Amino acid sequence: MTDVLSTTSDLASTYDAGRAYELDRAHVFHSWSAQAEISPMVITRAEGSHVWDGAGQQYLDFSSQLVFTNLGHQHPRIVAAIQEQAGHLATVAPAFANGTRSEAARLIASHTPGDLDHVFFTNGGADANEHAVRMARLHTGRHKVLTTYRSYHGGTQLAVNMTGDPRRWASDHGSTGTVHFFGPFLYRSAFHATTEAEECQRALEHLEQVVALEGPSTVAAIVLEAIPGTAGIMVPPPGYLAGVREICDRHGIVLVADEVMSGFGRSGRWFAVEHASHGAGVVPDLLTFAKGVNSGYVPLGGVAISDAVHATFAHRSYPGGLTYSGHPLACAAAVATIRTMEDEDVVGRAERLGADVIGPGLAALAAKHDRIGEVRGTGAFWAIELVSDRATREPLAPYGGSSPEMGAIVKGCQERGLLPFVNFNRIHVVPPLTTSDEEVREGLAILDDALAATA
Amino acid sequence: MTDVLSTTSDLASTYDAGRAYELDRAHVFHSWSAQAEISPMVITRAEGSHVWDGAGQQYLDFSSQLVFTNLGHQHPRIVAAIQEQAGHLATVAPAFANGTRSEAARLIASHTPGDLDHVFFTNGGADANEHAVRMARLHTGRHKVLTTYRSYHGGTQLAVNMTGDPRRWASDHGSTGTVHFFGPFLYRSAFHATTEAEECQRALEHLEQVVALEGPSTVAAIVLEAIPGTAGIMVPPPGYLAGVREICDRHGIVLVADEVMSGFGRSGRWFAVEHASHGAGVVPDLLTFAKGVNSGYVPLGGVAISDAVHATFAHRSYPGGLTYSGHPLACAAAVATIRTMEDEDVVGRAERLGADVIGPGLAALAAKHDRIGEVRGTGAFWAIELVSDRATREPLAPYGGSSPEMGAIVKGCQERGLLPFVNFNRIHVVPPLTTSDEEVREGLAILDDALAATA
Repeated sequence: MTDVLSTTSDLASTYDAGRAYELDRAHVFHSWSAQAEISPMVITRAEGSHVWDGAGQQYLDFSSQLVFTNLGHQHPRIVAAIQEQAGHLATVAPAFANGTRSEAARLIASHTPGDLDHVFFTNGGADANEHAVRMARLHTGRHKVLTTYRSYHGGTQLAVNMTGDPRRWASDHGSTGTVHFFGPFLYRSAFHATTEAEECQRALEHLEQVVALEGPSTVAAIVLEAIPGTAGIMVPPPGYLAGVREICDRHGIVLVADEVMSGFGRSGRWFAVEHASHGAGVVPDLLTFAKGVNSGYVPLGGVAISDAVHATFAHRSYPGGLTYSGHPLACAAAVATIRTMEDEDVVGRAERLGADVIGPGLAALAAKHDRIGEVRGTGAFWAIELVSDRATREPLAPYGGSSPEMGAIVKGCQERGLLPFVNFNRIHVVPPLTTSDEEVREGLAILDDALAATA
Repeated sequence: MTDVLSTTSDLASTYDAGRAYELDRAHVFHSWSAQAEISPMVITRAEGSHVWDGAGQQYLDFSSQLVFTNLGHQHPRIVAAIQEQAGHLATVAPAFANGTRSEAARLIASHTPGDLDHVFFTNGGADANEHAVRMARLHTGRHKVLTTYRSYHGGTQLAVNMTGDPRRWASDHGSTGTVHFFGPFLYRSAFHATTEAEECQRALEHLEQVVALEGPSTVAAIVLEAIPGTAGIMVPPPGYLAGVREICDRHGIVLVADEVMSGFGRSGRWFAVEHASHGAGVVPDLLTFAKGVNSGYVPLGGVAISDAVHATFAHRSYPGGLTYSGHPLACAAAVATIRTMEDEDVVGRAERLGADVIGPGLAALAAKHDRIGEVRGTGAFWAIELVSDRATREPLAPYGGSSPEMGAIVKGCQERGLLPFVNFNRIHVVPPLTTSDEEVREGLAILDDALAATA
């Protein structure tokens, strides 16, 4: 891996961490933040599962940044592909054909389930979901979109209206046709269920009722995260996605699986829908992706499209697009990422990491710390739910907020050299899929210490 | 410039043009197209103002792809910056600070007008406009957004609802609060005006009436392209943007200038709002950009934010974000692009190209070809309006459509080695700002021949 600290290049001044911080505070407007109340850590270097701040402090990254560096930082094959593509042909417009875009589409289609063999490329997950909804609406001639509470689908207006968490609230207008329903979540069941099977059955009954009462002939799509991500990593019970598929089939509704976070190995399968039932997976009509498709090294997202939806736009123009659709540089990173995943069985590695290291490790923490109310997950995709009382399941921070207790745990992790992923009362353990067993154990030990120190 | 035709890299198979075409047709879903009715040209190589197809045919690019390769293809400084950044630190999450992102924000802020000193980075123009509207709505506490007919603001749901051209039609539902008005366009005046001054005055009166009748206290923002781009490159008459600014000030409305296409030198100024009045430019409250910011080498867009709007989110969280906000690789390309523009006076070059070469050249074509109804533009941003009758101004293709006549002209250009930018009855002359005078004259001569051959 090259690390060119050039003093003559256009980037020379960017290597100064102090300057980076000053200019950030003067000129950079940050996502989801009160601008005067943040003090962002400067990241100056990264490799594998580690990053370094401006003071040279090393951190183990249990967040994969925003759950996207699935192959870790500065993976040499992805870096090489970006450098080669940049030197050959950095960009072409979407109307042309381009070998790198074609190969990325082929590789993606070779791993998506069923007949999801056509790929519309976007810049990220939000616009992928926006375009999936447009395709579903035009394919069905219907307008409504059903999505779950406790979900995230992106930051643009339609995508955030589809979102079922507090990030939606400030923008929740103009969302004509978006209807939220409850997905399965046994730990905080909306259905008074006490077993996984009961939760599954009742969640499907609930969805069936929502469809019936909204009017099946008005519903274009049901959009759901195959495994809800930031909202809590609620792995659906066996049979739930198959049941949703059956409801969609019965009513002519397009099933959109949002695999932006769960896709490309994160869950221990190429796509999380493959977990949907014992043995056979569920094939959605549209599957959206981003993040892991190229480990986030270049902005890229997309929609994988079934034959039936594709046929709708065979002789009718699809009314949507974007300047950077299928950007060669982004696609080059995807080609190298997917080939590496194939060659190194990264998906199998993620599965084993969950089964052998993260799952047992978090279970051991739960046995020691009463504040851990539940451990759940699969692959490299885990959450612990922190509570002030195991019996009442009172969360350690309110829905949509933080708390001094949660702040102390996060601070305790960071001080010990761990970057956790935190949302409300949850800590997610979502390291790169390439993190070694030893690194994961080291991170879990830090989490153990931070929990003990703040008990 | 490196051109690594590696046979061992992950990209080796992507250099085969035949394979690129086959896989494109099998797996790539294209923007704004009927999928079974397209036959995309394979682009295998590009340099400066030229691209090459799979058969080795060279084309002069008068489209800058989609009006974004402002510094042409494979500019060595941009390529070098991407390669250096990829080797050092390809990506970090938006919550951190990063030297390259900081420097890109500083450079952008150093060129944006007035106090537009804070930058929120997005992946492209559509999400930039979506976030600008969100900022305006929360800043004002109002909901409505006024935009012009004959405009384009992006492909996501809100952005396409704001759009004032046929790309909106298929998705024109759920656009609560979006209202369209007429901008100035003397050649096809909505106001029965006969002079530029009259068009300007009447267009402002019209906007004032729309604001009055919609209710000024309901209007969050007026969003307009500083010079409408794909919709026709209608350079606003002197005083129009200043008049819109005054209306906004009087009613507490946020003025959003969409400079996605017109910004970063395209118009012969860093930003097209600088043309707004003789001498002093107009300072919008928010300015959106993409494309030229880094010549489209890596997906990047953003919103430049005034102090007043920034202050709204100083102690109140901005409810929006995206995984790749301020992506280091995209920002590295922006740093190299802007530094190159500064060092080589690319903006002055664009101004002179328009004044000395493109403008006079198109005027000469209009003197020869009756089908050219109007020539208009500035910098490297020009349109010719093709008509079947100069007196009636009957367009050579219907609004929202094409025609055999337009198809023949485009084919004539391509057969002679020119890639034109075409929309309905217009041909836009929008080459890279770095195109040589000689290349521009060569392209205009091809256009001349294609027009003559199809007369």
